[in-house]
Amino acid sequence: MPQITFLPGKLVCEVEVGTSVPEAAERCGAVISYPCACKGACAKCIVRVERGSLDFADNGKLSFDLKRQGFVLACRSSVSEDVEVLIPSSVGDEAGQFSDAISRMGVDEDLFPTERDIKPLASCAKISVAPAEMLDGLGDYDRFVQAVRDSSPAAAVDLPLDLLQHLPDVLRESDGDVFVWRADEGGVSRIVDIRSSAPETDYGVAVDIGTTTVAVQLADVTRGRIVDTVTQYNAQIDRGADIISRITYAKNFDRIREMRGLVLSTINRGISELRERNGNIPKDEIRNVAIAGNTTMAHLFMGIRPEYIRLEPYTPAVMRVPLHRASELGLEVNPNALAWVSPNVGSYVGGDITAGILCTDFARGVQEVCLFIDIGTNGEIVLGNGDFLLGCACSAGPAFEGGGIERGMRASRGAIERVEVDPESGECRCFVIGGGEPKGICGSGLISLLAQLLDAGIIDQRGKLDRSGKYPSVRVAGKTARYVMVPSSEGDPGVYLTEHDIDNFIRAKAAIFSACVTLLNSVDMDFGAIDKFYIAGGFGRYIAIDRARTLGLLPFLDEDKFLYIGNSSLSGAFMSLLSERHRNMVSELANRITYIDLSTEAGYMDEYVAAMFLPHTNMELFHGKGSGVWAR
Amino acid sequence: MPQITFLPGKLVCEVEVGTSVPEAAERCGAVISYPCACKGACAKCIVRVERGSLDFADNGKLSFDLKRQGFVLACRSSVSEDVEVLIPSSVGDEAGQFSDAISRMGVDEDLFPTERDIKPLASCAKISVAPAEMLDGLGDYDRFVQAVRDSSPAAAVDLPLDLLQHLPDVLRESDGDVFVWRADEGGVSRIVDIRSSAPETDYGVAVDIGTTTVAVQLADVTRGRIVDTVTQYNAQIDRGADIISRITYAKNFDRIREMRGLVLSTINRGISELRERNGNIPKDEIRNVAIAGNTTMAHLFMGIRPEYIRLEPYTPAVMRVPLHRASELGLEVNPNALAWVSPNVGSYVGGDITAGILCTDFARGVQEVCLFIDIGTNGEIVLGNGDFLLGCACSAGPAFEGGGIERGMRASRGAIERVEVDPESGECRCFVIGGGEPKGICGSGLISLLAQLLDAGIIDQRGKLDRSGKYPSVRVAGKTARYVMVPSSEGDPGVYLTEHDIDNFIRAKAAIFSACVTLLNSVDMDFGAIDKFYIAGGFGRYIAIDRARTLGLLPFLDEDKFLYIGNSSLSGAFMSLLSERHRNMVSELANRITYIDLSTEAGYMDEYVAAMFLPHTNMELFHGKGSGVWAR
Repeated sequence: MPQITFLPGKLVCEVEVGTSVPEAAERCGAVISYPCACKGACAKCIVRVERGSLDFADNGKLSFDLKRQGFVLACRSSVSEDVEVLIPSSVGDEAGQFSDAISRMGVDEDLFPTERDIKPLASCAKISVAPAEMLDGLGDYDRFVQAVRDSSPAAAVDLPLDLLQHLPDVLRESDGDVFVWRADEGGVSRIVDIRSSAPETDYGVAVDIGTTTVAVQLADVTRGRIVDTVTQYNAQIDRGADIISRITYAKNFDRIREMRGLVLSTINRGISELRERNGNIPKDEIRNVAIAGNTTMAHLFMGIRPEYIRLEPYTPAVMRVPLHRASELGLEVNPNALAWVSPNVGSYVGGDITAGILCTDFARGVQEVCLFIDIGTNGEIVLGNGDFLLGCACSAGPAFEGGGIERGMRASRGAIERVEVDPESGECRCFVIGGGEPKGICGSGLISLLAQLLDAGIIDQRGKLDRSGKYPSVRVAGKTARYVMVPSSEGDPGVYLTEHDIDNFIRAKAAIFSACVTLLNSVDMDFGAIDKFYIAGGFGRYIAIDRARTLGLLPFLDEDKFLYIGNSSLSGAFMSLLSERHRNMVSELANRITYIDLSTEAGYMDEYVAAMFLPHTNMELFHGKGSGVWAR
Repeated sequence: MPQITFLPGKLVCEVEVGTSVPEAAERCGAVISYPCACKGACAKCIVRVERGSLDFADNGKLSFDLKRQGFVLACRSSVSEDVEVLIPSSVGDEAGQFSDAISRMGVDEDLFPTERDIKPLASCAKISVAPAEMLDGLGDYDRFVQAVRDSSPAAAVDLPLDLLQHLPDVLRESDGDVFVWRADEGGVSRIVDIRSSAPETDYGVAVDIGTTTVAVQLADVTRGRIVDTVTQYNAQIDRGADIISRITYAKNFDRIREMRGLVLSTINRGISELRERNGNIPKDEIRNVAIAGNTTMAHLFMGIRPEYIRLEPYTPAVMRVPLHRASELGLEVNPNALAWVSPNVGSYVGGDITAGILCTDFARGVQEVCLFIDIGTNGEIVLGNGDFLLGCACSAGPAFEGGGIERGMRASRGAIERVEVDPESGECRCFVIGGGEPKGICGSGLISLLAQLLDAGIIDQRGKLDRSGKYPSVRVAGKTARYVMVPSSEGDPGVYLTEHDIDNFIRAKAAIFSACVTLLNSVDMDFGAIDKFYIAGGFGRYIAIDRARTLGLLPFLDEDKFLYIGNSSLSGAFMSLLSERHRNMVSELANRITYIDLSTEAGYMDEYVAAMFLPHTNMELFHGKGSGVWAR
């Protein structure tokens, strides 16, 4: 009988030929959502064939783009041979947003917690509370605290009032044999829940609070696996596109409260959706939370004034974040759950990065030198190995996310995500997310387009368009010029790229490239020293390395040194949610990182200016395709 | 110049003859309320002359009854000679309710905390937080925690989120020199407040949660004095008059929540009134709370099911009550304030008693044998000395509070609180609280009446009325008879006492007397062994000892062995609010008390039956007035 393997959980079973994928999934215990009840109508039950193949009765509901990527509809597929199938852990509302599905794909499986590692912050253990005896002078609380201490020493036991309220009943229901979730730290045993019976599944949520998007992942803590993920835009987005504008907006406590409310509403909506679509999981059954976000996002999530992050001496309120109860934080899970927040190391290198590097060789402490870069509105970079770790951040601006680009947009339905430029005519063919009419261009489309325009000589090293009239797509109007992908029509401006847009892109890529160079220089290294170049962030997934190298966004290293690790912040939060070893590792790594402030670093501005060409003023860094000096 | 002393705070100053009392009070720092702005209209600014006299320009606004007790209106009085004046800490809405004013009067001053003792749970100390340095890897939180630990070791620091939110601003406002309120226990330093400047006055509230009334006392913690007190009926009162009916009512979580809400509303209304009428004290400035209540009241206050208190093996949920934050408890003070709750020692001997005995020689650990009795709906008794302590409770029923008596009422306006019976005619003259028409009879009136009826032979030892027709006040109707104090008139039933009422009274006094005897018997003692007989509870104040002895409610001891200590539960809560030494003392005393369950005690029922006569079946216990065998 053929064998079907469901990823990422590696759930395996043998089924007869012709068994439907939903049936096979159920047999393995793999969870796929079928919003239209397997009628083939909603196209939400997509899975991706990683090895082998499935019989797929295509009914035309799946876009060409997705089919090209290997996706099929689970409800219209059956097993014919040995096959490995990836279940995307979440499907966004808009086709093309599969960053969650593949977020773990580049991360070595052995970096994730093993079964032995599983120890969430609040772990469940059965304890025996002595029976009440008449006139023994002990209340239920006294006997409970004694039992907690007997099972594991604690100087203080912190029992929330609502648990104390239910304690008498729980003790009597269970004859004193109760299941207790406790988180022990610094001599204090914080009780999170007390039940008379153990639940089949213990849930937790891992949250990545990004400046642009917020990902919430529901985890089966008992079995150490992802159940489902939801990614949404951070509701703060209308209050500023980047970190600095968020800080500027949150200038008083009313605004801070507002910003906190916005990100909480985003997170809570995510949690609520996850609970609902996974069998209406009761709120109280989510007893662990792990959160990773950049320093500013962590401050706003907790309602702390972020202003001092950007004022000398640039001191965040929290680096190591103390534990707080969900009820205090406003998280709609078990009110007594404690939220573990990934530590910050500086104003602009935050918990998203310390969590993120759990997905890299930094977590192994090896001697190979690695460079980790999380490309988003900010670019955060960590360089080092088992001996040293340096971290810094640079402001790339929103160009990679379609911001600051006249016809730019995020990578959602209608965005041009890739183009093919005919070098002769200079005309281009556009590939649009979700098919349909192009509405704008996203970051990956921008890179795809600019690299080809540069190769074809349609733009020069300064990013100026060819105004000779040779290329009809280049339209000149006075001092400005633009490259037109989709001509304007009545009421529709079309899609195009201005020289000003190109400038913005160049500034963004220069910021990132020069930050990498400066960090390397500070330890007398160059790109040749790098063994692994990790690219994190949803955006990283979609850029073609050769195009990015062409433009000087990435250095000229062998393609196999680049490793996409997707949303490493979320993956790191997930690991920290499950495992004490990983939480300790994050703390250690955070303590080891030396935070570099680029603005005070000698040479950074020079490097930045030097990188303001395509690919670079120093062409030696990028001479010839495929024969770069840095390739080993 | 004459000297004026304001009690209970012992504030002294010298003033010229003719100085008005308000002016003198202001000079001493004593606080008197003048709701009508010293127009002499509201009669609320009453004070009582304890020694010496004041010139009082009586305008007729003060009742005769109050004048008889030595009260004057402060706004219409001036100083003419050395004088001591007691400021009642609260004046109820109804005249006659001055139990708060005199609650401390019977308690030895030296039992109260001295200036040196003052150490509330959350005490304020100034600490220096190191300044932020660029790139030192420390957030505000890290430096704050370090400073807390440097000032006094703590394994864990518990900082509520709202304080963390304000920490960055407070540190910068104060250049790191901050005032921190912290409560350290079991290695955990719980932070209650952080300010950049110290307030002039630090406030706290002491609360006595009685089954019938709730007293809330505002204290100036800095100076160790009472500011003001409010006493109100417990809003739970409609859900059952006594403890057992409250427990029975609170049978499910909806009801428990309701009961919790009711008592919280009472307490919070009290706090709000105290804040308002003492200069609109901000909620946040009340940073300490101490609470004393019986076991059931403590459970309902915290929303804990009280049912198991009365089910075998009679185990309360809490004996030693863990600290909780005001926000969690629902108390409307500083949300981070911690509430200290006086410990319980058994199902029916609770925190009101452990706090209460702070007002007795038990707190001194002397060898003299003392008996403490708190008379209310329940009678709680503690017997012992420095070597042993026994505690028990009995259910007296509501007779002493006017319950179970047809024309009974609480000691408020309109209640007959005392009578004078003419032994010849059998007719009586009534003294009514607040003057005016009598509406009913309260506990003290009942004792006054019954003792005189017994002396005159109008009732016999069984409590039966003389039906010979000799006394016109005794009206016989069939098998029943009643004694009429105020004849009925159209639409008004008048005030009278039935034989059934007398039966209820006898049961109540028998329960208390026999409990005392049983407790004494259990350690082979009799009343002769008792050196001090403490009577606590609002009711105790109003009973005349000779009358109570006549009826066998109190034993036949010398009058000077009886000590009224008023609302000792509130006084004990006040002491515990101020002083760590007193909190430790309460815990020690609570640990030392052996709780006796009368229902399982051999001989209790026999003693009870024997006490069902007036004064007792064993007349030897009460032979002759003033020559009791127990008198020493």
